[in-house]
Amino acid sequence: MFDELFGKLDDHDWLVALLDAERALAVVLGRAGLIPDDAARDIARCCSADAFDPVRIGHGSVASGNPVVPLVKRLRSLVRPDCARYVHFGATSQDIMDTAASLVATRALTPVLADAKAAADRCATLADEHRDTLMIARTLMQQALPTVFGLKCAGWLVALDEAMDGLRRVEPAAQLGGAVGTLSVLQDAGIPDAFAAELGLAAPVIPWHTNRTRMGALAGALGVLAGVLGKIALDVTLMAQTEVGEVAEATGGGSSTMPHKQNPTRSVLITAAVRQIPGLVSTMLATMPQEHERAAGNWHAEWETLSSLLRLTGGATARTRDLLDGLRVNPDRMRANLDLTGGLVMAEAISTRVGDGELVAEIARESVASGKSLRECLIEDPRITLSTQDIDAAMDPKAYLGAASDLIDRALRR
Amino acid sequence: MFDELFGKLDDHDWLVALLDAERALAVVLGRAGLIPDDAARDIARCCSADAFDPVRIGHGSVASGNPVVPLVKRLRSLVRPDCARYVHFGATSQDIMDTAASLVATRALTPVLADAKAAADRCATLADEHRDTLMIARTLMQQALPTVFGLKCAGWLVALDEAMDGLRRVEPAAQLGGAVGTLSVLQDAGIPDAFAAELGLAAPVIPWHTNRTRMGALAGALGVLAGVLGKIALDVTLMAQTEVGEVAEATGGGSSTMPHKQNPTRSVLITAAVRQIPGLVSTMLATMPQEHERAAGNWHAEWETLSSLLRLTGGATARTRDLLDGLRVNPDRMRANLDLTGGLVMAEAISTRVGDGELVAEIARESVASGKSLRECLIEDPRITLSTQDIDAAMDPKAYLGAASDLIDRALRR
Amino acid sequence: MFDELFGKLDDHDWLVALLDAERALAVVLGRAGLIPDDAARDIARCCSADAFDPVRIGHGSVASGNPVVPLVKRLRSLVRPDCARYVHFGATSQDIMDTAASLVATRALTPVLADAKAAADRCATLADEHRDTLMIARTLMQQALPTVFGLKCAGWLVALDEAMDGLRRVEPAAQLGGAVGTLSVLQDAGIPDAFAAELGLAAPVIPWHTNRTRMGALAGALGVLAGVLGKIALDVTLMAQTEVGEVAEATGGGSSTMPHKQNPTRSVLITAAVRQIPGLVSTMLATMPQEHERAAGNWHAEWETLSSLLRLTGGATARTRDLLDGLRVNPDRMRANLDLTGGLVMAEAISTRVGDGELVAEIARESVASGKSLRECLIEDPRITLSTQDIDAAMDPKAYLGAASDLIDRALRR
Amino acid sequence: MFDELFGKLDDHDWLVALLDAERALAVVLGRAGLIPDDAARDIARCCSADAFDPVRIGHGSVASGNPVVPLVKRLRSLVRPDCARYVHFGATSQDIMDTAASLVATRALTPVLADAKAAADRCATLADEHRDTLMIARTLMQQALPTVFGLKCAGWLVALDEAMDGLRRVEPAAQLGGAVGTLSVLQDAGIPDAFAAELGLAAPVIPWHTNRTRMGALAGALGVLAGVLGKIALDVTLMAQTEVGEVAEATGGGSSTMPHKQNPTRSVLITAAVRQIPGLVSTMLATMPQEHERAAGNWHAEWETLSSLLRLTGGATARTRDLLDGLRVNPDRMRANLDLTGGLVMAEAISTRVGDGELVAEIARESVASGKSLRECLIEDPRITLSTQDIDAAMDPKAYLGAASDLIDRALRR
Repeated sequence: MFDELFGKLDDHDWLVALLDAERALAVVLGRAGLIPDDAARDIARCCSADAFDPVRIGHGSVASGNPVVPLVKRLRSLVRPDCARYVHFGATSQDIMDTAASLVATRALTPVLADAKAAADRCATLADEHRDTLMIARTLMQQALPTVFGLKCAGWLVALDEAMDGLRRVEPAAQLGGAVGTLSVLQDAGIPDAFAAELGLAAPVIPWHTNRTRMGALAGALGVLAGVLGKIALDVTLMAQTEVGEVAEATGGGSSTMPHKQNPTRSVLITAAVRQIPGLVSTMLATMPQEHERAAGNWHAEWETLSSLLRLTGGATARTRDLLDGLRVNPDRMRANLDLTGGLVMAEAISTRVGDGELVAEIARESVASGKSLRECLIEDPRITLSTQDIDAAMDPKAYLGAASDLIDRALRR
Repeated sequence: MFDELFGKLDDHDWLVALLDAERALAVVLGRAGLIPDDAARDIARCCSADAFDPVRIGHGSVASGNPVVPLVKRLRSLVRPDCARYVHFGATSQDIMDTAASLVATRALTPVLADAKAAADRCATLADEHRDTLMIARTLMQQALPTVFGLKCAGWLVALDEAMDGLRRVEPAAQLGGAVGTLSVLQDAGIPDAFAAELGLAAPVIPWHTNRTRMGALAGALGVLAGVLGKIALDVTLMAQTEVGEVAEATGGGSSTMPHKQNPTRSVLITAAVRQIPGLVSTMLATMPQEHERAAGNWHAEWETLSSLLRLTGGATARTRDLLDGLRVNPDRMRANLDLTGGLVMAEAISTRVGDGELVAEIARESVASGKSLRECLIEDPRITLSTQDIDAAMDPKAYLGAASDLIDRALRR
Repeated sequence: MFDELFGKLDDHDWLVALLDAERALAVVLGRAGLIPDDAARDIARCCSADAFDPVRIGHGSVASGNPVVPLVKRLRSLVRPDCARYVHFGATSQDIMDTAASLVATRALTPVLADAKAAADRCATLADEHRDTLMIARTLMQQALPTVFGLKCAGWLVALDEAMDGLRRVEPAAQLGGAVGTLSVLQDAGIPDAFAAELGLAAPVIPWHTNRTRMGALAGALGVLAGVLGKIALDVTLMAQTEVGEVAEATGGGSSTMPHKQNPTRSVLITAAVRQIPGLVSTMLATMPQEHERAAGNWHAEWETLSSLLRLTGGATARTRDLLDGLRVNPDRMRANLDLTGGLVMAEAISTRVGDGELVAEIARESVASGKSLRECLIEDPRITLSTQDIDAAMDPKAYLGAASDLIDRALRR
Repeated sequence: MFDELFGKLDDHDWLVALLDAERALAVVLGRAGLIPDDAARDIARCCSADAFDPVRIGHGSVASGNPVVPLVKRLRSLVRPDCARYVHFGATSQDIMDTAASLVATRALTPVLADAKAAADRCATLADEHRDTLMIARTLMQQALPTVFGLKCAGWLVALDEAMDGLRRVEPAAQLGGAVGTLSVLQDAGIPDAFAAELGLAAPVIPWHTNRTRMGALAGALGVLAGVLGKIALDVTLMAQTEVGEVAEATGGGSSTMPHKQNPTRSVLITAAVRQIPGLVSTMLATMPQEHERAAGNWHAEWETLSSLLRLTGGATARTRDLLDGLRVNPDRMRANLDLTGGLVMAEAISTRVGDGELVAEIARESVASGKSLRECLIEDPRITLSTQDIDAAMDPKAYLGAASDLIDRALRR
C-alpha cells in the first residue's frame, strides 16, 4: 500500500541478486577450473528466483541469522546431487549478501540516475524559458529583492547535477573473501576480480567484510540527492500556497472533503520520502564500526536500511521528474507578488543609487508606517536628490537583476 | 524474507486498522443519530479487510497522497447505494489515518509489553538464582573487580522495568476533527470522545492533526526499550565470545562454513534491529513540526517510520525473551575468568585494607612486570604489614562483593 | 558567539556539578561515619569551582578518559593532607560524572519548564482572546476551511502542556555504585539513597552505570518539546510571510541589505535549534547499549550530547516564550486571506447543505475556470435549489466553525 | 574541559574566517575597481580578529539572527569613516558566513587528512610487519579461522585510504551572490570566481545559498571517515580485552580505583567521538531543503553542526594516529588464542581436505561434547581416511591462510 506512494524494492529484488551472485560464483569458478565445468553450468541453470520462496528462505534464516544459508541449502537441493558440493564453493554468506547488496544498489541506481538526469534537463529548460520571468526572491520567507524564476530553476539544476556527480562516484563492489576474508579455500586473489567483472561490479582491493566505506559513501550520496529533491519540493510547495499561487502541479491532488483544493501532492510525497532519509543515513554510518572479520549485528542492520534508502530515494526522484514535467508556472502571479509591497522590495536598489542605506531604510519605514508608496515617499523627501525619472528607473525590477542571466548561462553550460 | 528475521507489520495490519476506524465512526455516528442507524450497520458490515486489495488502494493513493481516499471510495462502492454518503461522514483522511496508526501501535505494543514482561521475569529468576555466582565485572572492557552474575541480570531487569514503564505511559489516541480540526460537520466536541471509547483508544483534549507529541513520545519510548534490548544483547555477545565463554545461547547459530561455531545469532539479530531504531526515532521527532492544520509531507513521513519502529522493536523484544529463556550460564568459566589475572583484580580490596592505594598499585605493577602473583608480591613486600591470612581474606572475591546481594533484593522487590 | 544565538551550557556548569557531587558524597559519608566528620567538612569547603581550571582539568582528562580523575587529584591537593584519602571515598569516576550530569540536567530543566509554562500561558491567553478571530485553516499548505486563530493557539497550548508533562516525568537520578556497581567499598545499599536525597535527585533502585534508560528518556522528552517549539515557530514563519502577513514578531530582524524586511528572527533561531535535536536524540539512544559494568565509549559520548540537547532546547524554549510574548496578530489580514478565494473555501459547507459533494465540486471547478465567484455560480446553477439567502448563510465562515469554541474551552480547562 | 578530550574548534576559528572573507571581498573589489583601492587596503588592515569580541558579536547577532551583521557593524566602526560604506560591499550575510564555513572546514580538514594519512602509513607498516603473525579471525565475535594480524591492518589501511579519497573529493566553495544570489549590486558573475581564488576555495557555478550539496557531501565524507576510525578503535578495544590481550595501547589509562587496569583510553575516546557523528550528519542532511533564496532556520542550524562534525572527526583522527603509533602487539597471545579451541577452528580446513563438511562437523561436535581434541577424534574416526600426517598438515594454521599475503600486497600497493 505504502510502496505505491513512496517507492518499491522488495524481497524479490534481493532474491534475484543473491542468486545472481551464486550463479556468477559458479561461472567464475568453473572457468577457473576450481569446480567442474558442468557443475558450474548446472548451478547456473538452477539460480532462478522462481524456484525460491522468500517466506521460506526467511524462516530458514532465523537459525543462521542470514538468508544465504537457507538459500544455499535450497539451491543444493535443486542441482544434480553430485554438483551440490560445488554450490557456494569457497564463499561465505557475507560474500553473497554483500555482492547482492551491491547488485540491488546498482540496479536501483540506474533509474534513479535516469530520473535525476531527466529532472535536471527539465530544470535546464525551465531556467532558459524563464530567464526573464520576473519574480520576488525571498529570504527567511520574507520578500527580498527581484529575481527571475529561471535562476531558481538554475539553482535546482546545479544542485541535481552535483548530487548526481556524487552518486556516480559511488561504485558498489563485489565481495568474495571466504569465511574470514583470506580466501582460505579459493586462495587465488585474482578470483574476486573475475567475480566482480562477471557481475559488472567494481572489484575491491581486498575483501571488505568489515570495511564499510562503500556502504557509508552510498548512503551519504543518496542523502545528498534526497536533500536536493527536498529543496525542489519545498520551493514548489511554498510557491503553490493559495496566497502565493506562482506554480501549480500538473493536476492537483483532490481532497476528500474540500473540492476546491489543488494539493501539491507530488511535492508532499517527495517531502515525505525525503524526510525519512537522514535517519536512515545515520543508521548506515552508525553501523560502520564492525567487529573483527564479521560484525555481530551491524552488518545485518544494513540490509533493510539500504533497501529503504534506495526505495525512498528512487520513489522521490521519479516523482520529482514527474513534478517538474508537469509544473505549471504562473508568471502573472509572480509579477503580482513582486508588486505586493508597492516597491519596498526595491529599497536596496534605491540605496545603491542614493548611496545611503540608512536614509533609504528610514524612508522605507515611513512608507510602511504611513501607507504611502515608497515611490511617493522618495519623491517627497527633500533629502533625496534623485529625479522622479531616476527613481522610477531605480525601482524597475528588470533593471536590478544583477548577473541573473549570466548565472543562468553558467548553470546551463555546465 | 527480512520480516522473519527482524519483525513483521504490514499493509494488512494497516488496512484492518483503517477499516476499524471507519466502522467505529459509523457506529458512533449512528448511535448519536448523526447518520441513519441502518446505514451505520451496513457500513460496519462492509468494513472487512478481505474486500480491499492493498495494492489497488496503494495505486489509488497516489493522486490524493494517502490511502484513505481510495479506501473510502471502495467502501462506498460496497455499501448499499443509499448509504454511500454516510461513509466517512464528517471525517477527514487524517482522522482515519491517525486513528489507524494509534490502533496499529496499540496492537503492536501488546505483544511487545508481554514479551518485555516475560524477559524481565526471566531476568528476575536469573538474578535470584545467580546471586552467588561469582564473575569478574568489566569496565572499559577490562577486568575490574568481582561481582555476581545475578547483579548483572538485576541490572537488565531494572532497565526492562523502566523501559516498560515509559512505554505504558504512552497512550495512543483516536483522532476525529474533520477537515481542519474544528469538527466543522460533526460540530459536537463529545463525538471524538465516543469515537475513542468505541475503539479503546485514549481521547485527546482536542484534535491533534498537527500536534504530534504522542507520536514523538511513542517513538522515544520505543527507542528507550530498544536501547535496553541492545544492552542485553551486547552483554550476551561479549560474554559468549570464544575467549570468554561465560554464557551461550540455547542453540548457537550454525555457520555455513565453520561447523564448530556457536554463533550468538539471537543477540546478533537483536542488535541488528536495535541499531535501526535511533535513526527512525530521529525521523519521528524531526517530522513533529507540521504546518498549519495538516502537514505537507511530515505527516506522511510518519506512516512507514512508525511501522518500522513497531516492527523492529517488536521483533527484538520477542527475540530477547527467547534469548533469555534459553540462555546457558557457565559459572565455571565465570570463575576461571575471575582468576585469570592471578588476583590483580583484588588490588582495590587490598588497597582498602592497606589504606594506601598508591603502594598497592606499585606492588600490582611489580606483579605484572615480574610475572609473580600479586599474593606472593604482597607477602614478600616489607611495606605490607598484613598477615598472609589477612591477605588471603582480602583477596577472596566472595568477601568483596559490597552490597551486591542487597542490590539484587532491591531490584527484585521493585 | 553561537551560544548567544542558540543557548548556553558550558564547562563551568559541569565543574560546579561535579564538585557538588564530591561535596555531597563527603557530607553523606561523614554523616554516616564512613569518613571522619572534619574530613567531610574540609572536603566540602574545598569543593568550590573557583579553585579549578577547566582547561587544566581537560588536559588531565586525556590519560584517564574522563575529567573526574584530574578533578579528584586537584581536590586532594586542596584539602588538608590527612583528608586527601577521604576525597572521592568509595566512589568511581562514573558515579561523579553521572551524578553531575543529572545535576546539570535538573538545573537546565528548571528554566526550560518555567519558560515552557509561560509560553503555554501566553498561548492560553491568545486562544481565549482570539476565539472569534476568523482565519483560514490550511492543509497541505492550501487554504481549506475557516477556523479561528484561537484554535491554532489552543493547539500550541495542548502540545506544550503534553511536552511539559513528558519532561516532568523524567527524574534525573544520583549515581553511587563504586567501581563496578556493587558498592564494594561503601557496602551499604542505603548510602546511595542518602546521597541522592542530599542532592535533591531521584534515588535509583540500583546503580545504573550501564542502564541508561533515564538518559534515553530525558533525550526523548527534550526531543518532543523541541518538536512542539518547532511547530509553533513554523506556523509563525508561515503566517509571517510577506504574502500572508497574519502575524509578525515583536520587532522583526533587520536585514543587512534590505531595510524593508521584517524577518521572523526568533522563529528562525528556534527552528535552527530545533533542527539539531533529533540527531542528538538519536545519538543518546544509540549509546544506550553499554558494555558490561562501564562502557568503552558510549558513556563518554553522552556528555557533550546531553549538554547540546539541554542547551539548544533551553535556548529555543526561552525564545519561544519571547516570541509569543511579543507576537503581533493581524486579524484584518486573516480575514482578507479567508476571503481570497471568493468563497471557494466554503464549498464543503455548501456541500453539507446541498448533500451532494460531487455537484458542488463541479460547480466550484466551473467557478475557478470561469473566474465567476462561487456564490454567483451557485445562484445561477439550476441544480442548486437553495435560496440565495440559504447560500449566503451557508457561505458565512462564522457559521461553519464547528465546535471550535468548545474545543478552545477544552484546551483551556486542561 | 571536553574540548581536550574530543577536539577543538571554536568561536575564534569562525571569527578569523569571517574576517578573512570580509578582507578577501575588499581586496577583490578593490582590484576590480568596484571600491576604492585605499578603502580596500584600509578594510583589509582592520580585519584582524583581535579587535572583535566574540561574546559581543554573539549578543549583537540575536536581532539579525547571524553574526555577520554585528561583525560588519564593528568593522565599519574600525575603518576610516569614509571607507565604512565599502565594508561588506555588495555582499549579504550569508555570503560571508558560507565562505567562512568553507574556510573553517578547509582549515580543519588539513590536519584531519594529515593525521589520517599518518595513521594509514602506520597501518601499512603494521600490515607488512605482521604479514606472518598468526591470529584467529573472528566472525560474529566467535573464533572462526586463522588469519594474520597484518591482514587486519591492511583492512584498516584500505578503509582509511577510501575514506580519505572521499574527503578529498569534497571542495568547500566560496559564496558570493549578494542579497538574493543575483549579484544585484556587484553584477559581474566573474567576481565570485576572483573571490574564491583569493581565498583558495573552490568557485561554485552559481551562488549556492540554498543549494547545500557541498555541506551534505562534506558531512557524509566525514561520517565515512568517522566510521572507519570507529572500526579501528573497536577492533583495538576488543583485542585489548583482558581475556584476549592481543594488543595494548602505548600506555593504558589508569583507573581511579583499580590500579591494575590498563584501559584502552584512546580507543574509548575515539569511539565516544565517532558515536556522535551519525546524528550530526543526519542533521546536516535534514537541513538541506532550504526555502527559496535563504532558509528560515535550516541554514542557521548548519553552523554548530558543522563545527561539531569537524571538531569531533578531527579529534578522533588525531587520536587514532596516536593510538596506532603506540600500539603494542602481542603475537604470543595471538597464537595462544588461536590454539584455544584445540584445533576446532581448523575444521573448515579439514572439511576441504575430506570433502564432506557434514561429517567433519559431526566429528567436531563429538570433540566438543567429549572434550577430546579434534585431532584425536579425527584420527580415531574410521570414516576419516586421511593419515595422521595429512591431518596434522591440514590442521596447521600457517597452511590455511589462503591468499592473505597477496591481499596484504594488494593493499600496500594501493
